[in-house]
Amino acid sequence: MGETVERILEPKTIAVVGASTDPSKRGHQAIETLQNGGFDGTIYPVNPSAEEIRGLEVFSSVADIPEPVDLALIVVPEQIVPSVLEECGEIDVAGAVVIAVGFGETGKEGEQLEERIVDIADKNDVRLVGPNTSGLINVNEGANLVGADGVPAGDLGLLCQSGNLAIALFTEAVALEGVGFSHYVGVGNEADLRFHEYLPYFADNNNTNAVVCYVEGMADGRAFLQQARKTVSKTPIVVCKSGRSQVGKQSANSHTGSLAGNASVANAVFRQAGVISVERSDELLAVANALASQPPMDGENVAILADGGGHATLAADALAERGLSVPELETETKARLRETLPDAASVRNPVDVAGGTDDDPSVFADCAETLFADPNVDGVMLSGLFGGYGIRFSEDLEPIEREAARNIVSLAEDSGTALVVQSAYESANPETHAILRQKGVPVYESLDRSVTCFSALAEYGDHLKVAGKKGDFRPRSVDGTVVSADATDGTLTEHDAKEVLGEYDAPMTPYKLVDTPEDAEEVVAEFDEPVAMKVVSPHIVHKTEADAVALDIEENVGATFEELVGNAQAYDPDARIDGVLISPMRTDGVEIIVGATRDEQFGPVVMFGLGGVFVEVFEDITFRAAPLSEYDARAMINEIDAKAMLEGIRGDPPVDREAIVEVLCTVSELIVDNPEIEDVDLNPVLAGEDGVQILDATILLSDDDEVDEEAIKAETDVLPDGGDNK
Amino acid sequence: MGETVERILEPKTIAVVGASTDPSKRGHQAIETLQNGGFDGTIYPVNPSAEEIRGLEVFSSVADIPEPVDLALIVVPEQIVPSVLEECGEIDVAGAVVIAVGFGETGKEGEQLEERIVDIADKNDVRLVGPNTSGLINVNEGANLVGADGVPAGDLGLLCQSGNLAIALFTEAVALEGVGFSHYVGVGNEADLRFHEYLPYFADNNNTNAVVCYVEGMADGRAFLQQARKTVSKTPIVVCKSGRSQVGKQSANSHTGSLAGNASVANAVFRQAGVISVERSDELLAVANALASQPPMDGENVAILADGGGHATLAADALAERGLSVPELETETKARLRETLPDAASVRNPVDVAGGTDDDPSVFADCAETLFADPNVDGVMLSGLFGGYGIRFSEDLEPIEREAARNIVSLAEDSGTALVVQSAYESANPETHAILRQKGVPVYESLDRSVTCFSALAEYGDHLKVAGKKGDFRPRSVDGTVVSADATDGTLTEHDAKEVLGEYDAPMTPYKLVDTPEDAEEVVAEFDEPVAMKVVSPHIVHKTEADAVALDIEENVGATFEELVGNAQAYDPDARIDGVLISPMRTDGVEIIVGATRDEQFGPVVMFGLGGVFVEVFEDITFRAAPLSEYDARAMINEIDAKAMLEGIRGDPPVDREAIVEVLCTVSELIVDNPEIEDVDLNPVLAGEDGVQILDATILLSDDDEVDEEAIKAETDVLPDGGDNK
Repeated sequence: MGETVERILEPKTIAVVGASTDPSKRGHQAIETLQNGGFDGTIYPVNPSAEEIRGLEVFSSVADIPEPVDLALIVVPEQIVPSVLEECGEIDVAGAVVIAVGFGETGKEGEQLEERIVDIADKNDVRLVGPNTSGLINVNEGANLVGADGVPAGDLGLLCQSGNLAIALFTEAVALEGVGFSHYVGVGNEADLRFHEYLPYFADNNNTNAVVCYVEGMADGRAFLQQARKTVSKTPIVVCKSGRSQVGKQSANSHTGSLAGNASVANAVFRQAGVISVERSDELLAVANALASQPPMDGENVAILADGGGHATLAADALAERGLSVPELETETKARLRETLPDAASVRNPVDVAGGTDDDPSVFADCAETLFADPNVDGVMLSGLFGGYGIRFSEDLEPIEREAARNIVSLAEDSGTALVVQSAYESANPETHAILRQKGVPVYESLDRSVTCFSALAEYGDHLKVAGKKGDFRPRSVDGTVVSADATDGTLTEHDAKEVLGEYDAPMTPYKLVDTPEDAEEVVAEFDEPVAMKVVSPHIVHKTEADAVALDIEENVGATFEELVGNAQAYDPDARIDGVLISPMRTDGVEIIVGATRDEQFGPVVMFGLGGVFVEVFEDITFRAAPLSEYDARAMINEIDAKAMLEGIRGDPPVDREAIVEVLCTVSELIVDNPEIEDVDLNPVLAGEDGVQILDATILLSDDDEVDEEAIKAETDVLPDGGDNK
Repeated sequence: MGETVERILEPKTIAVVGASTDPSKRGHQAIETLQNGGFDGTIYPVNPSAEEIRGLEVFSSVADIPEPVDLALIVVPEQIVPSVLEECGEIDVAGAVVIAVGFGETGKEGEQLEERIVDIADKNDVRLVGPNTSGLINVNEGANLVGADGVPAGDLGLLCQSGNLAIALFTEAVALEGVGFSHYVGVGNEADLRFHEYLPYFADNNNTNAVVCYVEGMADGRAFLQQARKTVSKTPIVVCKSGRSQVGKQSANSHTGSLAGNASVANAVFRQAGVISVERSDELLAVANALASQPPMDGENVAILADGGGHATLAADALAERGLSVPELETETKARLRETLPDAASVRNPVDVAGGTDDDPSVFADCAETLFADPNVDGVMLSGLFGGYGIRFSEDLEPIEREAARNIVSLAEDSGTALVVQSAYESANPETHAILRQKGVPVYESLDRSVTCFSALAEYGDHLKVAGKKGDFRPRSVDGTVVSADATDGTLTEHDAKEVLGEYDAPMTPYKLVDTPEDAEEVVAEFDEPVAMKVVSPHIVHKTEADAVALDIEENVGATFEELVGNAQAYDPDARIDGVLISPMRTDGVEIIVGATRDEQFGPVVMFGLGGVFVEVFEDITFRAAPLSEYDARAMINEIDAKAMLEGIRGDPPVDREAIVEVLCTVSELIVDNPEIEDVDLNPVLAGEDGVQILDATILLSDDDEVDEEAIKAETDVLPDGGDNK
């Protein structure tokens, strides 16, 4: 497999199927582009009715080509693609790039055609790129199957699901200077070759120092996570995922399902895999370039070296807003800066040289050296006018700037400190910047983009440190122990859900299912505290609506039993009633919500958040792909905005985080073990000083046909004031 | 005054004080720049020991200049500035630009020098720009006192507190193409002329279509708000404020004071004044350019017209993330688009032409016309490759693109719809983009910047619609009715604070101050419900610590009285005890917090937020400058993230918003009327279905010397579970 992708991405022999004598046709231009772009492999035009195109012998069928073909570029209309792929099977063709549209992206008929070409390709041992792609490029080899001119060479491997966005990135890279590509792959519909299958190649490819992905939707997100996790240990990956504003699947019966919007799950699981998510498409290249060239940061401490208070303050603001630190410098650092800089300078972080470089920009190198040596500094941002002193002040300063740039680069390398230069003179493209870029130092005009690079470098560095503690996205057992109980509309009764959780030793408020008033009396007497009583019936989901719930009951237990059951029977005379579930009322602790769902792209994921208004109003939740490691679970808890609530506010003791970790891991196990479980909602769970207890649980099974979208969970749980009714 | 600023910003006569024969000196270069920049007024070099500089007669003193001087550029060292200003007084000098540093920005001594030059200038009727400024420029007149070359001419007036940032913006404008400046003023330390004093000039200046401000700190933020409010009715203002990551004043005794961090107050009051705040310095110019050239939007509905699914989806994401809408198009609009576009196109919003423009970019104009005609569309974003079809596909398409650009511009103008073009080919600077820019249509490479422009245009449009309903930042009365009571550490007792609020008819839980056990018994009997009892003493701020609070009392009232008073006396034998405050316990409603404080830059401001964890954990609060209009108060309520809480969650009825509006306006009146009040905290206030009630109140007086920073408010209020103890 690895060899096949290598043949596709480093083709020595390319067949152009649908080659044309007409210079205005793609089938002609493709050959022209290869010839003019310096491709020095062999090109085989294929066309049943031509003899020579651009000096090359034309073959009437792929089958006639006398040697193995690494890559067939297929530019024929979609209906002809199947027969072309059959022809490919007659010789050794590693991969075929299918440009045509009219496949899965267009609807039912196109989907069938897409399935057909995948089958044919598979049968004939040909891997497909696309369909619905603009093609692929190996920039250094001149293997350009796209026809976009002037793609700048560089060290970024681009996997992109939009041809126009690829063009935009090529153009932006030119404008950025010093940013370029080793490869471009338009992954198209991912009918066969998928995002993750290109990753091992890039991990090993010497020309590629970072992988850039633009993703609309992944055909196999789970495989991507598995492969990305391995890849990023060698080569960083940056993803921009669109479709963030679209809502996720609408799962009316499950909180977790409906909260699992596309973007929040995607960003969380990418982070889990060590993949850097970028929200702004205009920061994608800048960040990838920094990750490709700069060392990952050991921590989140950035020193700012600016030649003006404005840039210094703006940079500090922007770093703080991205969660980075602008730490106090060591006393020795400050003392050394003080020696170098004029009195007006600020030697606290941010460092403002205050004119100290105006006559002599080599002072930048002196200050940078001092900052690189500070053990508390993980990255240095040089900000302001550097590179423009020769333009702004005096030409005589230009050689000094160049020399300073050389020194700064070599000092940064020696110290292993991340360095990004922000300069107002970036667009003037001075030689000083070329020196920096040649050694891989990113130089940007935008202060905000520069700052975003540090947050990516810090996130990547943090991942590398903890990667071994994170889950690896591979379910270890699928031995489905449970879930045989009845379900209406795919929803287990609360009692059955709790029985399932019990098999996993999940901590729950005690409960008893009783089927007579006498048993009810007895159970309440045993509990010896106020209880909640709920009718259990696979046919009654909306228990509150059916008046089948009573809270805070201490007396008249038998009568209450009869009333509730009577109400339920009146509500639905055909309902099978399993009994009444009795549980002690509980209110102490912080209300949290733990859930799991199956994401369409990434498979089973676990959710964590604070319950009640926190999840309802703020949607302050987070996700991880199951199976979770304990590290993953802890990271989830640390990730929510309201985590201070768990540390004990208003004098309360901190909650038992390890107990939450355990519940998260249990839910992870549950959804991984049981493919028939679609969603799990533990809501609310009360987290206290000493353990947690699950008060209510919902489990949804995955028989989609049976899911009643109207069936909104509206039962009352055991909070006193109807705590968490939804 | 207006005339003076006009003389300063449109100088006909400029004196250069500190003129030099040495070409390496600023005093020489300044003259050179004026001569080479096409300034056609008169330049008067001033230097006691030179006769001629660059062909101009040199005067030994400003006093010797034979005619009024509009502007004196003073480049002498700071110690000489006072004597130069004295000289200026001997003739008519409108303004002096003081370049020197070493004033207020450096400490005590510098502050004194700054005060001195302000006094001298005032006495001599000279207005000062600076000190600590890089100067000012009138770009069209060639009156360039900065020496920065190649500042592009355009319609933005720039007020900037950092010289290097100004240089960065000049360079960025060149790179952006089509963005430029009418004026630049380095406002420096604002020792005399302040930000707001330049605004009336820009409002009336025909060359200026938007004002851009970079602000580090404003000397008179309140005057800026007043003036900005007027200015934006003619000319939009965009502000980037740095120092956001710094904390505000530390007012340990007041919640409101300590929450009023610099940035959150500044952004809120700027919004109130109709000023657009930009958080990223790299979006400042792009936004200003859009505001200068495009009509403000009537609503927040944007139609996206893209030539690829990638750009379409990313734009929709980015718009949604900024709170804008990508609305459904009218049926007729979709039908017309369907006629124009190929089958593969998406005619829902975002519109993806899906290749429909590849052969004929004039289709863009047809689609744009259709979108402009949709009554539900306030702005159109053209996104993708427009302007690059001639480069990407075929040169023959270039004239078609140019013609399409002309049509689009004229259609947009006719329809009054805002238009921003995002193009991957922006950096190639095709003629098509020049056509768009010439007619004021912003063209950007960055999709995210383009989207930010729409949010600014929508915010500005919204302000213009409601401006008349907002407060005007002018206190109407300062007739200080109250606050004669005792205060310890500047803090009024709860009883006195409530008495003050009573004079403003603020709605409070009933309370009675009693001084005997018998009176206490009687009052509780009258209330006939559980009460809170708290000792009132100007000397005991920490009532809980003193065990001087009892909650939920129904019985043993007299004994409780004696116990509480005894505890208080034991805690502080010297404390004067005014009695015990008795109030019924209240818990129904949503807990909110209303406060007021005096912001260092903007004066009295009112705060609103949800109480409890919302303010403590999420800091979900908002501010407005007092005095508030009712509109302002309503806007505050609509602005908090958790506003859904007020609409009634979990089946609760919505709270009485108008009652909150009234309390906000009352607190506004209170702080405006009483200059001695520094902070007001009403916390908690319970907002119910039918009115609100203030449960606890703290008022801090402004005698700073007496504020005990250790004295953290730690009293218990009348919530049952210690609801809001801090």
